Formats: sequence, C-alpha cells, structure tokens
Amino acid sequence: MSSSLQQELIASIRNIADYPKPGIMFRDITTLLGNPRAFRRAIDELVHPFAGTKIDKVAGVEARGFIMGGAMAHQMSAGFVPIRKKGKLPHDTVRIAYSLEYGVDEMEMHRDAIKPGEKVILVDDLIATGGTAEGATKLLQQMGADIVAACFIIDLPELGGRKKIEALGVKVLTLIEFDGH
Amino acid sequence: MSSSLQQELIASIRNIADYPKPGIMFRDITTLLGNPRAFRRAIDELVHPFAGTKIDKVAGVEARGFIMGGAMAHQMSAGFVPIRKKGKLPHDTVRIAYSLEYGVDEMEMHRDAIKPGEKVILVDDLIATGGTAEGATKLLQQMGADIVAACFIIDLPELGGRKKIEALGVKVLTLIEFDGH
Repeated sequence: MSSSLQQELIASIRNIADYPKPGIMFRDITTLLGNPRAFRRAIDELVHPFAGTKIDKVAGVEARGFIMGGAMAHQMSAGFVPIRKKGKLPHDTVRIAYSLEYGVDEMEMHRDAIKPGEKVILVDDLIATGGTAEGATKLLQQMGADIVAACFIIDLPELGGRKKIEALGVKVLTLIEFDGH
Repeated sequence: MSSSLQQELIASIRNIADYPKPGIMFRDITTLLGNPRAFRRAIDELVHPFAGTKIDKVAGVEARGFIMGGAMAHQMSAGFVPIRKKGKLPHDTVRIAYSLEYGVDEMEMHRDAIKPGEKVILVDDLIATGGTAEGATKLLQQMGADIVAACFIIDLPELGGRKKIEALGVKVLTLIEFDGH
C-alpha cells in the first residue's frame, strides 16, 4: 500500500479529543466514509489482496462493519453475513460472550449463515484491544468458517488487538495506524 | 426489472411467522444478503437507474441500510452517510423524532455530513408504514439535500409508506413487494 494513500486516509479521519470520555482520542471514520474518493480507495485496498481468491462470505460486525462489509461483499460477489449484538437477529442463532473495556457483552449470528469450510473475510472499522474481533473470530471458527483474513481500516497497535487475532491463526489486514487510544 | 429477478429475490427472503410478535410475518433479508448472487443482483438493480447521474452521497439507515448503502456508495463512487439512532455519532449532529408502531424515537446524522444541494440517495432494507423513512427524508431535506430517490429492497404497500415519502416530493424505488405485514 502506498504511503500517499495512507496519508490520504489518515487525513480523512476526524480526531475527536476526550470522546467518549476524557483522555481518549476518538478516531471518527464517518468523514472517511463520506469522502467518495477515500471510501472507494479504502474498500478497493481491502479487496485487492483477494483478487484471485474465491471468497464465499464477508462477515461484518455491527454497525460500522456493515458499511464496509456490504461494499466488500458486493465488490467480491460474495454474500454478506451480519454479526449483531444479541437479540437483533430473527432466526436461530449462535452466540458468544466477548470482552469490552469494562465488562462483557454478547454477539450472535444466524446458525445457518456460514457452512463449514466456507471462505470468509471478517471486517470491522477499527481494531483496538481486539475483544470484539476476537469474539467474532471465535464465533466464525465455531461455525467451521475458513477465515481468510480479518480486515480493519484502523489499527491501534499499542492496544494489542492484532496479536490477539493472529494468535487464533487468522491473518490481519489493516490500512492505517494511530498511536495510543 | 425482470419478473425472473423479482422471483429470485422473493425466493431468497426468509419468512418468519409470528415474529417479532403473533400475527406478524417477518421478512428476513439476511438470507438475501448472504446469497452472493441475490445480493449482487439486488444492489446492481438499485444502482442501475442512476448510471448517468452524479450521486454525491448514499445515506443508509441503521443498521440494515448500512449494508446496502455501503455497497451502493462504493459502486457509485459516492460517499456514505450513516443515519443513526440517537447518541451513537461522535460529532455535532442534527436530530429528528420519528414515529414507530408504538411511540416515537429519534434519529440523527452529523451536521456536516451533507452540503446543501448535494445529490443524495436514501436507502433502507424495507419500507412498511414509512415512519423511519419519513424521518430520514425530512432530516436530509432539512440539511438541504437534493434527494434523488429513496431505495428499498422490500415494499409492504398495504402499509402506505411509499405514499408518505412520495408526498414529500421524493421518488421511491423498491424491488419486491409482499402483502400485509
């Protein structure tokens, strides 16, 4: 990936100090999504490494992962699978608990959304401590998915999320990094 | 739109009786999204009428509208704008109350997400009574958006949502219809 594209994507992110609480620099991706050129180039860059690979499903994590995942699935002619907060899917689901900064929550997907052996790409906007991504990865692995990669626009490497996902045997692809929180 | 494509899309929807409550037939779109061919064809059909039109932004309604909207924005080289439930966007927002079946809720978007005069497509998965779509339409119009169309995969025409949006001067594009709820 070119450093000029990285610079363009970094410049398209809005940084919001002390949100959602004091001391946190929030990386607001809506300004990247709303920028036609930045959004197009970010998605193309995430799809490009898989040009020669048949991907069956793109699994997106609610809610921002839905935006990127919809675009990636359409571009790759794959199906899209939503991974949602508990209680939002209408049919039979599998569920997993995952760690948040404080406490735990649960996420789920439809039991029939992935067939064993299907090639799946997992996507969310950002990986920080990796709690959400770890839960989604384990859920997909429980369903027998062959996770080709987990993709994120933003990595906060100091928080260790990437290593957590790689430890589960999954390749991690990210576009840009920010220091700290 | 060909009737064979309509039949294919209708067949890809899962019908769940008595969900979320007795007497309601829930139209589950996740089986369409997860079907690579149906998802690709549905998005292509929604994008096709605008092939010769410069679209600045695709505005998707949380959460299923994010999936379709991400795909449409990328395909059209437009920006994506999330319309979210209140309290989820990190920057300065505009907010509007909208009617649900019982009671009201509020949705919002970033104040700087749309510039006056920008050509916008609004998208959600389904239009029923049209309360959500009406709120989103009014919010975009307040921001000065030129709403080129409001797009939905599913229309439940007996519930009157389409007419509500058309009464606001916005063209409505839907792919398939189901009777009743």
